[in-house]
Amino acid sequence: MIDAQAPDTPALLLDEARMLRNIARLADHAQKLGVTLRPHLKTAKSVDVARQLTGGAPGPITVSTLAEAEVFFADGYNDILYAVGIAPQKLKRVQALRQKGCDLVVILDNAAQAQAVAEAAVPAMIEIDSDGHRGGLRPDDPALVEIGRILHTAECLRGVMTHAGESYTVRGREAHADFAEQERKAAVTAAENLRAADLPCPAVSVGSTPTAHAARDLTGVTELRAGVYMFFDLVMAGIDVCTQDDIALSVLTTVIGHQPAKGWTMIDAGWMALSRDRGTAAQDVDQSYGLVCDEEGRVLTDYIVVSANQEHGIIALRDGAEQPPLNLPVGTRLRILPNHACATAAQHDRYHLVPQSGGPLEVWPRFNGW
Amino acid sequence: MIDAQAPDTPALLLDEARMLRNIARLADHAQKLGVTLRPHLKTAKSVDVARQLTGGAPGPITVSTLAEAEVFFADGYNDILYAVGIAPQKLKRVQALRQKGCDLVVILDNAAQAQAVAEAAVPAMIEIDSDGHRGGLRPDDPALVEIGRILHTAECLRGVMTHAGESYTVRGREAHADFAEQERKAAVTAAENLRAADLPCPAVSVGSTPTAHAARDLTGVTELRAGVYMFFDLVMAGIDVCTQDDIALSVLTTVIGHQPAKGWTMIDAGWMALSRDRGTAAQDVDQSYGLVCDEEGRVLTDYIVVSANQEHGIIALRDGAEQPPLNLPVGTRLRILPNHACATAAQHDRYHLVPQSGGPLEVWPRFNGW
Repeated sequence: MIDAQAPDTPALLLDEARMLRNIARLADHAQKLGVTLRPHLKTAKSVDVARQLTGGAPGPITVSTLAEAEVFFADGYNDILYAVGIAPQKLKRVQALRQKGCDLVVILDNAAQAQAVAEAAVPAMIEIDSDGHRGGLRPDDPALVEIGRILHTAECLRGVMTHAGESYTVRGREAHADFAEQERKAAVTAAENLRAADLPCPAVSVGSTPTAHAARDLTGVTELRAGVYMFFDLVMAGIDVCTQDDIALSVLTTVIGHQPAKGWTMIDAGWMALSRDRGTAAQDVDQSYGLVCDEEGRVLTDYIVVSANQEHGIIALRDGAEQPPLNLPVGTRLRILPNHACATAAQHDRYHLVPQSGGPLEVWPRFNGW
Repeated sequence: MIDAQAPDTPALLLDEARMLRNIARLADHAQKLGVTLRPHLKTAKSVDVARQLTGGAPGPITVSTLAEAEVFFADGYNDILYAVGIAPQKLKRVQALRQKGCDLVVILDNAAQAQAVAEAAVPAMIEIDSDGHRGGLRPDDPALVEIGRILHTAECLRGVMTHAGESYTVRGREAHADFAEQERKAAVTAAENLRAADLPCPAVSVGSTPTAHAARDLTGVTELRAGVYMFFDLVMAGIDVCTQDDIALSVLTTVIGHQPAKGWTMIDAGWMALSRDRGTAAQDVDQSYGLVCDEEGRVLTDYIVVSANQEHGIIALRDGAEQPPLNLPVGTRLRILPNHACATAAQHDRYHLVPQSGGPLEVWPRFNGW
């Protein structure tokens, strides 16, 4: 990167070639499995990235906030699943989008939500708990049919959905395939239980990035969701969903000093640029606050960001590793691969796209908020 | 809070009465110590909060990014210390602000930075390491005078500064007073060493929130810095710099569901609203992702956010605590006190000010970025 085109640091870089490769891989896999892919835009929060995912189609997409639904609808998307349990107070904003022509669907797992949603005449999917991760009803919970009836009476029942967040805690394709089957089984069983009670269940939606890539058979499932896969990160590499070379996102930073006696290199990327996420802490290899690469993205083996203050990072050799000390002059630019792309991206209001053509960087805006 | 005036959740609330009390406390203490208070705006990043701190004066203030310097200069501040080691590539933006009339001063701790700063004719303070926390030169490092000479030759030497970040790791006023004396001694010794070499050292700047409140004698020091004190947080309460009742910042959230068998209450504030900061993890009392209060801000003893996904939080009873289970209907609003105000505030683009007058909430914008 030549000085004249380098953004001020810290800055979020997005490698276009890697992103497109990641997008194509999962799109192909979903096609082979015979399901619709409904990408989750909670990580990207960018209309430019969304366009790469959907190829200009108006959906289907998944979002995690109403702000995302509003931005993407304004950009032409009209088939949107808001995949966080609905707070009744938010139904007015949902209704406003629906009245403008957006087929925005919400999720829920209890009768209080179902009553509010039915009164508001908003379509909903019932969240199914496939792994004890957080919300949702077990597929055999009697409340499932009760809630299904509340929704169906108001013609609001769209189907069931589940997300095996616990798949992030295991490593390897076999283990993720097991979770994928667990997701499939839970969602399909719930759908069957609704249908056995004479309730419709057109949509059966499953997915997380690890399970989406590992799933072998999605019989009975209609759609697949995944979020972080277009960028990937060290957490995903640490459980073998991708390789480190697939990670499309990095934080560009500059060396600002040294503490030679401690083997420290000080950089201008702290947790404000990297996030406080320590998602690799419980993995086989703890990457602390991120893995260090040179300015072109080549990994500097065993150098990690060992500590992060708000605007300062400290690079040092991983404990136990033996390497020559880093001796990089003040002003040297480096890239840091992030633990968790969702958290790191959220610290930035733009991507600096590194185009696969090799041309100058482009700015792709991103947004946050609710 | 009545429904009509409550913001959509999650939302960042700022209690005006507590904030003003916190601001007055440290201003009084600095006055008694006979030093100028130079508040750090890295946490607040808000012109409205800045106005409360400086009472309309054009400084002095401290910032952690050039974006802060630019925003606050545009709002009338002209006495600004940029307290992160300067990357040479950023000097053009510093010069641009200085040419417009902003007395923006940078910090550095090595000769490479000093050469670049001297060439750019930008005034600088030398960072002193008083506790081994991150950057800076020990006061007796021979490089101190060498760097002082480089700066002085270009008439750029403004003084010395230090920050005892390690004071956050100890508890109680006595321990913080010891760190305050350590900061004072390191900075004053460095200033004396420069003066002994016939170099000027007009400014001697020290501070962190714990040491600023605990300092008893600042002889030889000219100014005091602190950042999080206007808001405070659970980390500061956990080391007795403040009480939980002093915490002015909280995240408003809504109950969206339950997992009764597990004792879980699901809320719509995850790490996107609370941050991934786990600053209390190593303290005597681990508050996990935050302490739960009712909608008016009264602490619900021993209920904490035990887990956080991107847009989901899980509230449960602290391990070992005995309380009746929370049984709050879907739609109930709660407040979460944050571990680390700097990290939590950074997840939001606005404060919802709860005025001490009792009137309706006001929106105070905040910004991020570099």
